[in-house]
Amino acid sequence: MTDRSPLAPASFPELPPIDGVALRVARARYKAWDRCDLTYAELAEGTAVAGVLTQSRCPSPEVEWCRAALTLGKARALVVNAGNSNAFTGNRGRAAVEAIAARTAQHLGCDPSDVFVASTGVIGVPLPIDKAEAGLDAAFAAEPCDWEAAAATIMTTDTFAKAAVTHAVVGGKTVSLVGIIKGSGMVAPDMATMLGFVFTDAAVAPELLQQMLSAANRRSFSSITVDSDTSTSDTVLAFATGTAGNEPLASMDDAGADAFHSALSDLCLQLAHLVVRDGEGATKFIRIDVEGAESDRSAHRIAMSIANSPLVKTAIAGEDANWGRVVMAVGKAGEPAERDRLAIRFGATQVARDGLALAGYDEAPVAAHLKGKEIEIGVDLGLGEGRATVWTCDLTHGYISINADYRS
Amino acid sequence: MTDRSPLAPASFPELPPIDGVALRVARARYKAWDRCDLTYAELAEGTAVAGVLTQSRCPSPEVEWCRAALTLGKARALVVNAGNSNAFTGNRGRAAVEAIAARTAQHLGCDPSDVFVASTGVIGVPLPIDKAEAGLDAAFAAEPCDWEAAAATIMTTDTFAKAAVTHAVVGGKTVSLVGIIKGSGMVAPDMATMLGFVFTDAAVAPELLQQMLSAANRRSFSSITVDSDTSTSDTVLAFATGTAGNEPLASMDDAGADAFHSALSDLCLQLAHLVVRDGEGATKFIRIDVEGAESDRSAHRIAMSIANSPLVKTAIAGEDANWGRVVMAVGKAGEPAERDRLAIRFGATQVARDGLALAGYDEAPVAAHLKGKEIEIGVDLGLGEGRATVWTCDLTHGYISINADYRS
Repeated sequence: MTDRSPLAPASFPELPPIDGVALRVARARYKAWDRCDLTYAELAEGTAVAGVLTQSRCPSPEVEWCRAALTLGKARALVVNAGNSNAFTGNRGRAAVEAIAARTAQHLGCDPSDVFVASTGVIGVPLPIDKAEAGLDAAFAAEPCDWEAAAATIMTTDTFAKAAVTHAVVGGKTVSLVGIIKGSGMVAPDMATMLGFVFTDAAVAPELLQQMLSAANRRSFSSITVDSDTSTSDTVLAFATGTAGNEPLASMDDAGADAFHSALSDLCLQLAHLVVRDGEGATKFIRIDVEGAESDRSAHRIAMSIANSPLVKTAIAGEDANWGRVVMAVGKAGEPAERDRLAIRFGATQVARDGLALAGYDEAPVAAHLKGKEIEIGVDLGLGEGRATVWTCDLTHGYISINADYRS
Repeated sequence: MTDRSPLAPASFPELPPIDGVALRVARARYKAWDRCDLTYAELAEGTAVAGVLTQSRCPSPEVEWCRAALTLGKARALVVNAGNSNAFTGNRGRAAVEAIAARTAQHLGCDPSDVFVASTGVIGVPLPIDKAEAGLDAAFAAEPCDWEAAAATIMTTDTFAKAAVTHAVVGGKTVSLVGIIKGSGMVAPDMATMLGFVFTDAAVAPELLQQMLSAANRRSFSSITVDSDTSTSDTVLAFATGTAGNEPLASMDDAGADAFHSALSDLCLQLAHLVVRDGEGATKFIRIDVEGAESDRSAHRIAMSIANSPLVKTAIAGEDANWGRVVMAVGKAGEPAERDRLAIRFGATQVARDGLALAGYDEAPVAAHLKGKEIEIGVDLGLGEGRATVWTCDLTHGYISINADYRS
């Protein structure tokens, strides 16, 4: 077990229960470990669901199952397996997902398509159906648990349990949103990151929930990267139990929709940042702001090119104000850029402008900034109004140790 | 200075002189080091030139200079500076290139546009004109040197001097091709890699030389990657002095054109492989073959996605047969792929087929293969006839040490 990330929050947050969500965990023993690795969330009847799933061309059967079930917009349960992603396992993998959905549906008396399943861990080993079924039965019989136990149970190589909370006032009712998430490597989600689950007691129509989640995803899960690698299992699901008693939100024009959307976006961003803070081997949390690009999309691509550059990430690890590597990463992005208009800053200190180092540039404040744990890189392309912000972490010996020694 | 790469050839190759090429080196002292860092190649009158240059949107002034000069197709000299790339240095950088070309042109009595200039090293520091001019004068006065001295003088973080030779028979004359190259990090050339120079005594029209070099580049320099980062200075130039006395080649239909093209392609591939063998921190030379893709272009993108995946590269470093990471890298490439048709091999051993691990798959021969220094990964997508081969190296603690400690 790796030490807790130096970028982790001091403690697990205080989280309220969400009415209509009952959490239970159990030991399915998908690996040779003595810890809970199966999470079961029972959801009130009438719960709406939305989701964003990996864009990988080789997705897990869980992702395919969720993609199909999401079209119906309703959920009664979520089952999460840790230690085995069940990806690239052919028919046997599909059979395992179907068995989990069937057993849960039988337990609840609902349709199998009301059961959402996500798995994370090693690729290529079919999820053992007998262990899953025994684990489920144990979970059905278990006492309900708290958020921290659930957040810890979905972890794999994560070094700390991750969760966040936000609130919104919708039609006079205060609603709560709680999210749990796991992920630390293979993080460059194309639509979503690893496994993340959001629960709210608000009443929201599934189509609107989907619209809001997709928008929130673009500026959160799709704006982070640890190592440029995209998982076959990336899944973010949002469940709205509707137990808060608010007039159901069905359109962005409804009273309270803006507030809820804002709270959901804030929650997703908090969760995404927690994943970066647990990036494998990370010692620095890096924010990259790109402005002056030809479009927001172009700014995002340039920001991700910087965030994924091994040379930028190792320079930050080495606390080296090597802004030339930022120029390199802008140049390779393939997006419109003009060398002689480019400006770069580290923290609050401008280091280059109009295509060359600033006259009389003093490296001292930059060196001081780089010694901290929270690093900011700003790039102004001087071309237009496009802007984007992404977050990443540094690339260290810790990443190599974790991934060159991890046995499948 | 880092130790010589464990993947380096046993010794520097035996290389013939190329008639019409005179090499000299000198100490310009671009950095605080006591070694030659300026290379000057004088070329016979009538030398044809072709080149491929970085696709970076933030190229060095040297790249812009060469791009303009290449349109004329003729060369009398090459000047290479090591220790300072002169990139992102504004007008002062451009002035340095112009000064070098002017002084060399004056020395030779030729046009400045006949002088090709390339620089490699730190980004953002203008190349000091006084040092360049003093270095040039010293080079003009120096005794001619051999290929090994020139190949060593263009090095920066390279751990060994790199060169290769091939021959071809053109119209009854045997012609020679010699190349030198440098590069070890910031290697994911989009058109060319770092700095590479090919010299031949063959007579070849510049348009045909360009056509052949561009084709050779696609399967050599554009098919390697060390760290996915693309330099602002990538330059490959080919010079044909025409002193061999062959009937000048002007078209691919000319006798001997195929033989010359083949020799040039072989030389470029040898040079490209040497760069991978000196990849920063590399301990394994990795060949990735992708077949069965919808097109060659699609195969190339999938192969590069595998070659650039930190998780694949760290798995190889750890000698871990983690083929699930190869699936992940195929899936994230965004190219057509069907999980249930995918087949993967390590070395000669098939590990997965039709979307799942091979029944009775024995890991022993794969583990033995991964203990070697030459690793092969094969992927068959089962979709079409597209194929591509790319080369990379593993990602190790050595890469982090070199790049997190390297001071700009």
